Amino acid sequence: MSKQTIDEVIAVSEGRMLGDGLQWADIKEIVAQCSGLDEWYGVFAGIGERYEKLAEKSLQAGHKISAGELFWRASMHYHYAQFYAFEQPALREDGQKKKVALYRRGAPLLNPPAERIEIPFEGFTIPSYLRLPDGVKKPPCVVMLGGLESTKEESFLFENMCLARGLATFAFDGPGQGEMYFQTRIRPDFERFTSAVVDYLERRNEIDATRLGVIGRSLGGHYAAKSVAHDNRFKSCVCWGALYELQTCWEDMQLPTRDGFRYCAGQTTLEAARRYLEMIDLNGWPEKIRCALYIQHGAKDALIPVAQAHRLAHEARNASRIVLDTPAEGNHCCHNLYHVSRYPMADFLAETLKA
Amino acid sequence: MSKQTIDEVIAVSEGRMLGDGLQWADIKEIVAQCSGLDEWYGVFAGIGERYEKLAEKSLQAGHKISAGELFWRASMHYHYAQFYAFEQPALREDGQKKKVALYRRGAPLLNPPAERIEIPFEGFTIPSYLRLPDGVKKPPCVVMLGGLESTKEESFLFENMCLARGLATFAFDGPGQGEMYFQTRIRPDFERFTSAVVDYLERRNEIDATRLGVIGRSLGGHYAAKSVAHDNRFKSCVCWGALYELQTCWEDMQLPTRDGFRYCAGQTTLEAARRYLEMIDLNGWPEKIRCALYIQHGAKDALIPVAQAHRLAHEARNASRIVLDTPAEGNHCCHNLYHVSRYPMADFLAETLKA
Repeated sequence: MSKQTIDEVIAVSEGRMLGDGLQWADIKEIVAQCSGLDEWYGVFAGIGERYEKLAEKSLQAGHKISAGELFWRASMHYHYAQFYAFEQPALREDGQKKKVALYRRGAPLLNPPAERIEIPFEGFTIPSYLRLPDGVKKPPCVVMLGGLESTKEESFLFENMCLARGLATFAFDGPGQGEMYFQTRIRPDFERFTSAVVDYLERRNEIDATRLGVIGRSLGGHYAAKSVAHDNRFKSCVCWGALYELQTCWEDMQLPTRDGFRYCAGQTTLEAARRYLEMIDLNGWPEKIRCALYIQHGAKDALIPVAQAHRLAHEARNASRIVLDTPAEGNHCCHNLYHVSRYPMADFLAETLKA
Repeated sequence: MSKQTIDEVIAVSEGRMLGDGLQWADIKEIVAQCSGLDEWYGVFAGIGERYEKLAEKSLQAGHKISAGELFWRASMHYHYAQFYAFEQPALREDGQKKKVALYRRGAPLLNPPAERIEIPFEGFTIPSYLRLPDGVKKPPCVVMLGGLESTKEESFLFENMCLARGLATFAFDGPGQGEMYFQTRIRPDFERFTSAVVDYLERRNEIDATRLGVIGRSLGGHYAAKSVAHDNRFKSCVCWGALYELQTCWEDMQLPTRDGFRYCAGQTTLEAARRYLEMIDLNGWPEKIRCALYIQHGAKDALIPVAQAHRLAHEARNASRIVLDTPAEGNHCCHNLYHVSRYPMADFLAETLKA
């Protein structure tokens, strides 16, 4: 991994970084400062620290809106600091924990605020955030699922798109993700954690739990499909990338990605991880999907072949409505099209949940 | 001008473009497509057209929030299309008019919407937009002034920062700017147009006209200082760049900038423009400023020396409060620091207007 140049890494990741809220000025500075991936964590964390100081200063001056946004920016830099540190578990853990702590400080200051919620479930505690749109009574709610290494803190900008459309948002870390990683690695029953979230949402009077949607990105797209197949209380589902099954694309994946799966699965070898992750397979599930389904999958996704999206759409024949969107130039999760590809997903959720 | 490479132009302008809402993915595409400045207009307009089509499609599907944002994105591309076309008045006019038309279509769809207002004043019609923050009764209001070639359509993202802080926003084109250019070129009494806006705002019951602020960028910073010196109904002023007087920096300015001044001043030669623009001089005005004043001026501004900001701060000794902020690495209007430099200006307005 150390042989990869920073430029190559940025070229692959910049769409995702920008789409999730990193600033091009910061990315440029990182490229200029970093001469190799061994410096990556330190350079990213350095900018994170700078944002954290700005956030503290804003808070002390009583500028809450700025403070909230700056804490979020800081947290994003720690996220991407640990992003390529699969081989350095200590750094990865530091980055994850710092990200969580910074976002948590910013959460009540965000506009609208993010309410921290911890849902007890079978001995676990599901960490999550609820945000409510201003001026909407009993809004529908969209549950947000992260992927292999995306977490509840990264959906902030997509949450804002939902909130602007009158939708509440609920983001949580499931097995293997973010904070939950320290409680449990990837498990075969992510969908049961999603259902625990739905149980919780049904007890929240501010939202209309008869109008729930879910969106999941990358591996989260797999979890989203499984979650709505498992739980018919969802009215709408967006697979932001459709990972139908992992085995057939395993060998073609870059080593860092496979190693990421190994890490999140809590396995010691790649071969053990491959076997353990045979569970990442939707076979038998799509037929059970009854709600509205939107699948967005880049035709040029080098990680997960677009054929998996076609297969999911084909088998989800019992869905109340299906839109299969495969932009010709889109890469993994269409991150390179971040500036245009997110609108239709937010609009689909708003439309199908009658926001 | 044709000798300048696109890379150089982008390097100078990218901070401003990104800060005003252009997407890095689009800028990259423009750099790849454009082999010279003669292609600039066409390439920018092409992407603008693409956004316009997406906007129309969204509107037809009933997705108003997306449509509003996409019309705004389209309008920004036409703005930057005409940005370097001072030597091609026909293209410049096309771009300005298309920008105005696209923003106008998006305005009622924005979140919160922008209400189009036309204020009659001494035979002119001042074109403007009012936006009100959600859920705030009688909010303060910030008047937004463009500069030499920035207009009311470009303040959208800064408006959003104000709105999030509980401030209403009112953006208009004054003499020589945007739509007003076709009614009158630069005049020596911009501040009287600002006062006409204040007269109007005093008749709007939704806002609290006893808490008015003004922010002006670049040449607009000059107009802002003059406006609050002229009209004591303002409680707060932000000079986003402090152009004290034009004559001493005229000869050091790049030709395109001087030609821009010539164009907006309605003069045929650079020398005639220089003489006409002797009016751009704050001498005698700063002493009359009584309200709170924030001046942000990059220490590395190559267009207007930071000494002009120091001079303004020094002479504005009767202001109720002065903050002089001169970031060491900041260029013109600190556009290169767009990702951090805008927070303190928005916070100063919110604080001094007691939002």
